[in-house]
Amino acid sequence: MRDILTLLVTITLVVCQGQAVAQQNLWREEGVLSPEVCEDGGVIFRLYAPNARRVVVEGDFASEPLPMSRNEQGVWEFRSEPLASDYYTYTFAVDGMKGVLDSSNVRTVRDVASVMNYFIVGGDKGNLYSQQNVAHGTVSRVWATTEDLSRRMTIYTPAGYEAGYRSYPVLYLLHGMGGDEEAWIATGRMAEIMDNLIAEGRAEPMIVVMPNGCMRHDAAPTYSAEEYKPYMSGSMDGSFERYFPSIVSWVDAHYRTYTSKDRRAIAGLSMGGFHAMQISRSYPDMFDYVGLFSAAIYRGEEGVAIYENLAEGIAEQFSRGVSLYWIGIGRDDFLFEENVAFRRMLDEGGYEYEYFESEGGHTWRNWRCYLAEFVESLF
Amino acid sequence: MRDILTLLVTITLVVCQGQAVAQQNLWREEGVLSPEVCEDGGVIFRLYAPNARRVVVEGDFASEPLPMSRNEQGVWEFRSEPLASDYYTYTFAVDGMKGVLDSSNVRTVRDVASVMNYFIVGGDKGNLYSQQNVAHGTVSRVWATTEDLSRRMTIYTPAGYEAGYRSYPVLYLLHGMGGDEEAWIATGRMAEIMDNLIAEGRAEPMIVVMPNGCMRHDAAPTYSAEEYKPYMSGSMDGSFERYFPSIVSWVDAHYRTYTSKDRRAIAGLSMGGFHAMQISRSYPDMFDYVGLFSAAIYRGEEGVAIYENLAEGIAEQFSRGVSLYWIGIGRDDFLFEENVAFRRMLDEGGYEYEYFESEGGHTWRNWRCYLAEFVESLF
Repeated sequence: MRDILTLLVTITLVVCQGQAVAQQNLWREEGVLSPEVCEDGGVIFRLYAPNARRVVVEGDFASEPLPMSRNEQGVWEFRSEPLASDYYTYTFAVDGMKGVLDSSNVRTVRDVASVMNYFIVGGDKGNLYSQQNVAHGTVSRVWATTEDLSRRMTIYTPAGYEAGYRSYPVLYLLHGMGGDEEAWIATGRMAEIMDNLIAEGRAEPMIVVMPNGCMRHDAAPTYSAEEYKPYMSGSMDGSFERYFPSIVSWVDAHYRTYTSKDRRAIAGLSMGGFHAMQISRSYPDMFDYVGLFSAAIYRGEEGVAIYENLAEGIAEQFSRGVSLYWIGIGRDDFLFEENVAFRRMLDEGGYEYEYFESEGGHTWRNWRCYLAEFVESLF
Repeated sequence: MRDILTLLVTITLVVCQGQAVAQQNLWREEGVLSPEVCEDGGVIFRLYAPNARRVVVEGDFASEPLPMSRNEQGVWEFRSEPLASDYYTYTFAVDGMKGVLDSSNVRTVRDVASVMNYFIVGGDKGNLYSQQNVAHGTVSRVWATTEDLSRRMTIYTPAGYEAGYRSYPVLYLLHGMGGDEEAWIATGRMAEIMDNLIAEGRAEPMIVVMPNGCMRHDAAPTYSAEEYKPYMSGSMDGSFERYFPSIVSWVDAHYRTYTSKDRRAIAGLSMGGFHAMQISRSYPDMFDYVGLFSAAIYRGEEGVAIYENLAEGIAEQFSRGVSLYWIGIGRDDFLFEENVAFRRMLDEGGYEYEYFESEGGHTWRNWRCYLAEFVESLF
């Protein structure tokens, strides 16, 4: 294969010397523009696949694959209905080969073991999930060595952190099963959401810590020498909950944090919501703010000591004081019923919590919203 | 489309409840393992494309596309010759559709406007480019606001930075044309190289600053709200060189740096080598160590004041003292001859420099090596 960089730079230099060449074709497959977000929110997807017989686009904006049409140049095209402002992911399927990325779109994101393209339709949510012309926080990938384990974490520090001396409250933000420390910063658009809410004065400046909640991994696959395997079991076995105080100690030792309970929050999605629930009640003097996003409340492994006596643990936690216990879930979420059961337990105990019921199911579309709602209430 | 996460979590919960299901198939397309690095360094690539008629793998380990063979299950396969230990990138082409990613391999990397898969063959170089069980530095993405511009940079701080109080020397490391602040950390494997060399005592602990050298962008595409366009001109127009002292000032104000010339280095590849050469001679009291990797020495735009009087500038730079002026290039690099011409100018002036001539051309394979060679000589 001709080295791509060589090709690019060769072309570049031709351009620099003033000879106009159509270098665009090197960048976007056969000059294809995709995706094209139209003014009405409709999106045109295009893929150059001259010899394909059937091409569909599959995205989180549609409930089924959408057949594309081929033009005479071999470019397949589909135009969507106008989409609401949001962040969307998609891939193509070509003649039965699924997960084909859009080579015209450099914006990709990995969620667990799937790599997808994404685009944003501007407007309210889309703007919240996009870089805006505001002060930006820093996103750091750190390796924290605690208890002889070296594990990777993603840490957001708000704009101004490096130049200042003040301390900040901390939100610990946990991913779902199969995920890792990249999940919230990638598909979750955490940094954009925090930057924008802080800039608008809708959220307090805070540090956000995103550890890897699967103790069988040290890091996300790109940053680990381990053979990649997205474990779909074994990460609700109590090991993360037992390890968690080491994470908090490491963060407090390495960042300018407030260390009192009223300056600490914990939240997570799905398995991460379960972790947040178990951790916050296991260490009832650690967190004053708890967020459960589509939490997998009753999915812990059997026979794990730290998961036992849930009702007593929750009672103890609330007796010591909780500023905010926040539960968000979609009406179509397959975990909806067990969240109903959990709320019933909270109601029977007379424990106060905030409840946010949304449309939709177990999706990042909801989790981004829940994060924005939750952080506005913190500290 | 059925939401991927819903699907995953649904399966997960089945697993958690002890019913063995073959969830692997959800993760790796049709159970395909790809790439498989064999003990002898041969690599087997596989792609499920049941209806395709011709599939090839294209990678930086081969000079031409390699035809794959289809088995009865619709999986295409190719086994390479044993490959030398290194980091390699590849994509597939299916029936004329190029740039198809390997859906069995979550490890992807973007270089300019191309997204590719990668893998590592272990051994000497492969190990240097991999996470090892050593102390790891932190990689931060910061937005630096200087002169009313907010621009993104990637910054590596060595292991121990957060917990300590000492200051560190700084290497400014610049990307090539079309690249951005992600290039060295992604394809360049900068963090792994630095972690491993520092751990072995072969490099001094240092801060490495990777700014975005194209002043028409504020950030890499995933982190910018701008429409993405990899500019292949207009970034050798003097604007980056004029702006550069603002970057140094910002870094010195926000990190614990040594600020004397003998504790600062600058290096870059291709266009970045040109930038490093121009910046170091334009500010001759700023850098004691200069590295030009396959530098595009004579490719600056015409009529740019800061690029004029090169010979005089170099003379002035050397008269003020340079601890190390390092030039690396491959014998097959299309910029080889102009590096010969540049070295002739240095020789005629009697200026000392180190010269590292390698096999190969204008490739990341060389630039990773040059980085490792260069940083061992710093500070």
